[in-house]
Amino acid sequence: MDDDEIPGRVTLAQVAENAGVSISTVSKVLNGRQDVSPPTRLKVEKLLEAHGYRRTTRTTPDAPLIEIVFHELDAIWAMELILGVEKVAKEHSASVVLTQSGTRHSPGPEWIEGVLRRRPLGVILVFSALPQEYKLQLRSRSIPFVIIDPAGDPEPDVPSVGSANWSGGLAATRHLIECGHRRIGIITGPEDMMCSLARLDGFRSAMSTAGLDIAPGLIAHGDFHVEGGFERALDMLRRTDRPTAVFAGSDLQAIGVLEAAAALGLSTPADLSVVGYDDVAVAKWSRPALTTVHQPLRRMAEAAAEMLLRLRAGERTTTRMELATSLVIRKSTAPPPR
Amino acid sequence: MDDDEIPGRVTLAQVAENAGVSISTVSKVLNGRQDVSPPTRLKVEKLLEAHGYRRTTRTTPDAPLIEIVFHELDAIWAMELILGVEKVAKEHSASVVLTQSGTRHSPGPEWIEGVLRRRPLGVILVFSALPQEYKLQLRSRSIPFVIIDPAGDPEPDVPSVGSANWSGGLAATRHLIECGHRRIGIITGPEDMMCSLARLDGFRSAMSTAGLDIAPGLIAHGDFHVEGGFERALDMLRRTDRPTAVFAGSDLQAIGVLEAAAALGLSTPADLSVVGYDDVAVAKWSRPALTTVHQPLRRMAEAAAEMLLRLRAGERTTTRMELATSLVIRKSTAPPPR
Repeated sequence: MDDDEIPGRVTLAQVAENAGVSISTVSKVLNGRQDVSPPTRLKVEKLLEAHGYRRTTRTTPDAPLIEIVFHELDAIWAMELILGVEKVAKEHSASVVLTQSGTRHSPGPEWIEGVLRRRPLGVILVFSALPQEYKLQLRSRSIPFVIIDPAGDPEPDVPSVGSANWSGGLAATRHLIECGHRRIGIITGPEDMMCSLARLDGFRSAMSTAGLDIAPGLIAHGDFHVEGGFERALDMLRRTDRPTAVFAGSDLQAIGVLEAAAALGLSTPADLSVVGYDDVAVAKWSRPALTTVHQPLRRMAEAAAEMLLRLRAGERTTTRMELATSLVIRKSTAPPPR
Repeated sequence: MDDDEIPGRVTLAQVAENAGVSISTVSKVLNGRQDVSPPTRLKVEKLLEAHGYRRTTRTTPDAPLIEIVFHELDAIWAMELILGVEKVAKEHSASVVLTQSGTRHSPGPEWIEGVLRRRPLGVILVFSALPQEYKLQLRSRSIPFVIIDPAGDPEPDVPSVGSANWSGGLAATRHLIECGHRRIGIITGPEDMMCSLARLDGFRSAMSTAGLDIAPGLIAHGDFHVEGGFERALDMLRRTDRPTAVFAGSDLQAIGVLEAAAALGLSTPADLSVVGYDDVAVAKWSRPALTTVHQPLRRMAEAAAEMLLRLRAGERTTTRMELATSLVIRKSTAPPPR
C-alpha cells in the first residue's frame, strides 16, 4: 500500500465507511486477496468505481511486470506476439508474465484475481473483448490495458492494436488477378470473426473492381486450421468449374488447400495458385513456399506494449492502431493453366 | 522480509557485522536492490554463502511466480516448453514469468538481478549451464532451479530434465535399416553440443550392430536450422555414391534436406528417405510429412516444473531425469530405390 498517496487514502476511508467495512478490508479487495466474501468484494468494488477511486502508481516497482494473456497460447502466431512484448519489456527492465486463460472472448476469473495481486505495469490481452467488471477493476488500480486483436473486432472504449485485414484481403486477391486468374475461390475464417469478414470484403472489392464475378460455391468459411482448409478445398476442387486459384484466410488453411490439391493430383502452382495469410514460419517452410499476406505480429505486440507504457505514464494515446499488412510473393502462385 | 524466520535473522545480523554494514544493506543485497555498491554486494554475497545462509520461504506469496528463462525464445520448440510449464503453474495457481537472456550457455547478469527481486517459487532454465555465482545467489534465497536441457550436457550438481538422445539416434537409424537402406548419411547438430554427439553415437551403434559401414563423407554437422541441412545435404547428394537415406539431426535440418533433394530433382521418399528429430509442428506439415523422433518437450517442461515445486517443498529429487524419445513414422521414409 506504500504508493497510495493522500488523495487515495481519503477515498479509501470514505469507501470503507460507505461500505460499512474496515479500511483493511477495502485494501484487501484492492490487492485481490481471497479472504473477502464475494458480496463484500462486490460492494467495495462498486463503491470504488462510484467514487472514481484511482490507486496512484507514482513509483515504479522493484521488479516491474508486463502481463500478456492469451486464450490460445499454442496458436502458431503466439510466439511472435510474446517476442514483441518481451523486446519492449526488456528495454524497460520489466519481465513478461504469461497467462493462458478463458475463452476466445475473455480471460477467466482466476486471471483477474491474480493480476490484481501482481500489480503489473500493465496488461496486454490477446482477446477481442474484456468484461466490463474487469475493466473497472483494472481502472481503479490504475493498471492500463491494451488489446492485441488479430481478430479485428475490438471494443470502442478499449485501446487496441490490430492490422489491416481488409487491405490484406484486397492485396492477396489483386495479386491473383494480376497473375491472370479469373475463377478465384476464397476460404476465409469463421463467420463470427470480424477479421474473416474484412478479408472476405477485401476479396470481394478486388474482384468487383476487376469486373470479375464470384462463382457460386467459391466462398467458404474455414476454422483457420489445416483441417478446415483441407475440407473446404476438397469441396471446391471437386467441382467441374473448379477455381484456378484460392485465397486461403490463413497460412494453416493454405497448407490444407495444398494438401487437398495434392490429394486430387493437382500441382501447385501449375494447376492451382494458393495465397495464405499471416506469414508465420510454416509459410516459408511449406512446399511450395507460400505466397501470403504478412501480418506484422511482432510489431503489433511491440506497439501494444509501448502504448501500455505511455498510458501508464499518463499520456493519452490513440484508441485504435492498425498496422499495415503486406504481400509476400513466394512460390505458390503463378499464372493459371491454359 | 516478512518470511525471514528467527534462524535467518540471526545469520543476517552476523553477516552484517562481519561485512561491516547495516542489516538493511544485507537485506537490500538479498532483495537484489540496485542501490548497493558492487564491492559491498560481493562481500555480502560471499559472507552469506560462507555462513550457509538460507532465506526461509515457509509462506507462499500472494502472487506466486514460476520463471522460465530462454536464450533463444524464438526457437521453434520454445512454445512447447512454455505450455508445459504453464500447465503445472496453473495447477498451483502460479503465473509464468518469461525471460529471454544471455547466450546459449548462461542467462545474463540483468536477469539474475531481476529474479532476486521477484522471488519466484523457482526458476526453470533452458540452458546447459548456470554460472557458479548465480547458483550461490539462488541457493542463499532458497529459490530452487532446474535446467531443461535438450542439448544434453547438464552440470552434475544441477537438477535437470532432458531426453534420450542416444536412443533417439538409434531408433531413427534402425528404422532406415529396417526399410532396407544400406548407404545412410547423417547430418547431426553442432559438434560442441552433447545432444548432437549422442544422436551421432546412436546412429553409429545402429549401423555397426547391423554390420553396415558408414561411407566417408556421410557424416556431417549442421546448425540445427534449415540452411545447415540444405547445404550439408547438397554436398552429400551430389556425390556419386550418394546415400539413399539421411538421418537429419532436427526437423528443420530435415526440411533443408527435403529442399536440397528437390533442388537436385530427387523425390522423397522414392529416391531419398529422410528422418527428422524433435517432432515439432512443422514435421507434420512438411510435404511429405516427416518421419521423425519425437522429443517430449511439453512433458519435459512439466517434469521440470514439478521437480521445482518438489524442491521448494524441501523434498529431495533425482538430479537428472531423462524422458524417452519415440519414433513417429510418417511419409518421408520408404524402401530405397532399386
